[in-house]
Amino acid sequence: MKQGIISRYASFLPVTEDTPDLSLNEGSTPLIRAKTLSRSMGINLYLKVEGFNPTGSFKDRGMVLAIAKAAEMGSQAVICASTGNTSASAAAYAARMGLRCIVVIPDHYVALGKLSQAVMYGADVLAVEGNFDQALEIVRELAEREDLTLVNSLNPFRIEGQKTAAFEVCEELGEAPDILSIPVGNAGNISAYWKGFSEFHQSGRIRRLPKMWGFEAEGAAAIVQGEKIQKPETVATAIRIGNPASWKSAVAAAGESQGLIDSVTDEEILQAYRDLARYEGVFCEPASAASLAGVKKLKEAGGLSEGSTVVCVLTGNGLKDPTTAMEAVSVKPRRLPCDQSAVWKAIRDKEVVHHE
Amino acid sequence: MKQGIISRYASFLPVTEDTPDLSLNEGSTPLIRAKTLSRSMGINLYLKVEGFNPTGSFKDRGMVLAIAKAAEMGSQAVICASTGNTSASAAAYAARMGLRCIVVIPDHYVALGKLSQAVMYGADVLAVEGNFDQALEIVRELAEREDLTLVNSLNPFRIEGQKTAAFEVCEELGEAPDILSIPVGNAGNISAYWKGFSEFHQSGRIRRLPKMWGFEAEGAAAIVQGEKIQKPETVATAIRIGNPASWKSAVAAAGESQGLIDSVTDEEILQAYRDLARYEGVFCEPASAASLAGVKKLKEAGGLSEGSTVVCVLTGNGLKDPTTAMEAVSVKPRRLPCDQSAVWKAIRDKEVVHHE
Repeated sequence: MKQGIISRYASFLPVTEDTPDLSLNEGSTPLIRAKTLSRSMGINLYLKVEGFNPTGSFKDRGMVLAIAKAAEMGSQAVICASTGNTSASAAAYAARMGLRCIVVIPDHYVALGKLSQAVMYGADVLAVEGNFDQALEIVRELAEREDLTLVNSLNPFRIEGQKTAAFEVCEELGEAPDILSIPVGNAGNISAYWKGFSEFHQSGRIRRLPKMWGFEAEGAAAIVQGEKIQKPETVATAIRIGNPASWKSAVAAAGESQGLIDSVTDEEILQAYRDLARYEGVFCEPASAASLAGVKKLKEAGGLSEGSTVVCVLTGNGLKDPTTAMEAVSVKPRRLPCDQSAVWKAIRDKEVVHHE
Repeated sequence: MKQGIISRYASFLPVTEDTPDLSLNEGSTPLIRAKTLSRSMGINLYLKVEGFNPTGSFKDRGMVLAIAKAAEMGSQAVICASTGNTSASAAAYAARMGLRCIVVIPDHYVALGKLSQAVMYGADVLAVEGNFDQALEIVRELAEREDLTLVNSLNPFRIEGQKTAAFEVCEELGEAPDILSIPVGNAGNISAYWKGFSEFHQSGRIRRLPKMWGFEAEGAAAIVQGEKIQKPETVATAIRIGNPASWKSAVAAAGESQGLIDSVTDEEILQAYRDLARYEGVFCEPASAASLAGVKKLKEAGGLSEGSTVVCVLTGNGLKDPTTAMEAVSVKPRRLPCDQSAVWKAIRDKEVVHHE
């Protein structure tokens, strides 16, 4: 039977005999070879498709461990501030574990798809008239004072769980790739992957380490610009973060691996987002496509050797944000009379909507 | 490396040396034990979570084979009529295979999430001013006359691919379950599962066969009522079908297995839909929950022995239809001032929105 990450990687995780065997079958996500893009770019490109996780994003890897440890320590309730993927994941695992889940969201700033998940999984959702940073401050202070376990990324078990994605990449390829490319928002995930690769290297399971390439969105590129962004703006909402919590460890991961942290424009992100769906059949969140956009940018700039093995992490499922998808392709289906010959004429003459 | 269904089950599929090795890592979906619901219902309940497939529904199992065979036979373009999951799946695999995909949809009847998938995967989408049945008639006739491969469920490779889900259930459990419960819309999937169980039985891989329980939505229960429904209506849009294409084979599957085809109300479907998310952490499409709703109904009516092993097929991912989710729980997050003590008071006194 397919295992979750706690069973699969127990020896690398801070679990004990008392840690509940919690799982919704997170992890073991596919590493799909990007055939068309490999050919066109002259590299050996793979996609780590994290949207296959139970709630549709990589957050499930860390959340399963955070919730299991909360239960192990006797917690009855978990709390987080979130506008999206974190709350969906926390709510799902808390439901499975039988814990109460409290989600504090900034009012007016939650997309329908992600809110629907938290609500369906039975979380108590409270909307405060403030922004995300204020919501996070409230839940941090409450978690310190009251009998509530914080499951935002400040919870160290989150990074521990997330590092398992690096293990899977190594196991599938038989070695680390040359480059691991990843979107950078709050910067926890690049830190987690680097921790995973480093641990596998220390244990002798891989002989070399990849270069870590992280890509911020240009309108939210705090690390690249070297300063907090007061009003981050980008179409890639999942990485619209102006003050990354894991800033230092992300910079360390890039430095230690001889990698880099760079930024990509919204236009580059949306082009990569469309290319992934159209040429590889993989529909991800806009933010996820920052990893491919960055690789394309550096390849074109001569910063990547022919034939390199590159893994792009696609952090979330495209179904989380259908509105952006429809806007990105700016298409309306051609309307026709209900008539066979009219349909055939449109098909034959390719009088169909084009997608650019 | 994780395999798709063509590689994993080649010996049971009509594939040749010339069949392309097409895959987006469909299949190998988790069979999750429903711990809380097993306990409350006194049965041994498993969920076959088909929303983990690449485009979020079970359709990917059949579509990968239909598209691979189309390519093998030299087709350059595939066509289907659809309002939802079929078009998303066809568009994704056609993109991966490099074939043109034409989707004919009834105008005004396509949900945002599902349309966004077909469009992102680069399908040519044509909207006709008619209903689904008329759209299907047009594509059937065009496929007969022109150089286009029909990939609606009339394509026999669809059922062949879909039967692989039954193989997986048997392999995970080590035997067939007592009951396989499944939503019935167009009725192809119950037929496919039964074909899969029967083939595994004939090959000696399982020693007994399950009873097949299929559940239609009450407002679209053509098979139960024994006549076509002119205007099918149900919240479970994916099974809102008044004239099932695989009617006869579904009845045969129920009969040969000493199973049944019954119906469940929208209220029963929505209750099961909420229970799955809230107690098991699994968010499916409303239609998917018809399988659990039916099992609950029959258990309460005394039609199911204590301790029976039951597998409920959950056909699609809840993220496909966030609007129904929000309506189903009829919740609005409680709005509070951005103030720690106000938030704590709401948490402590459980002055949070309830979800019923």
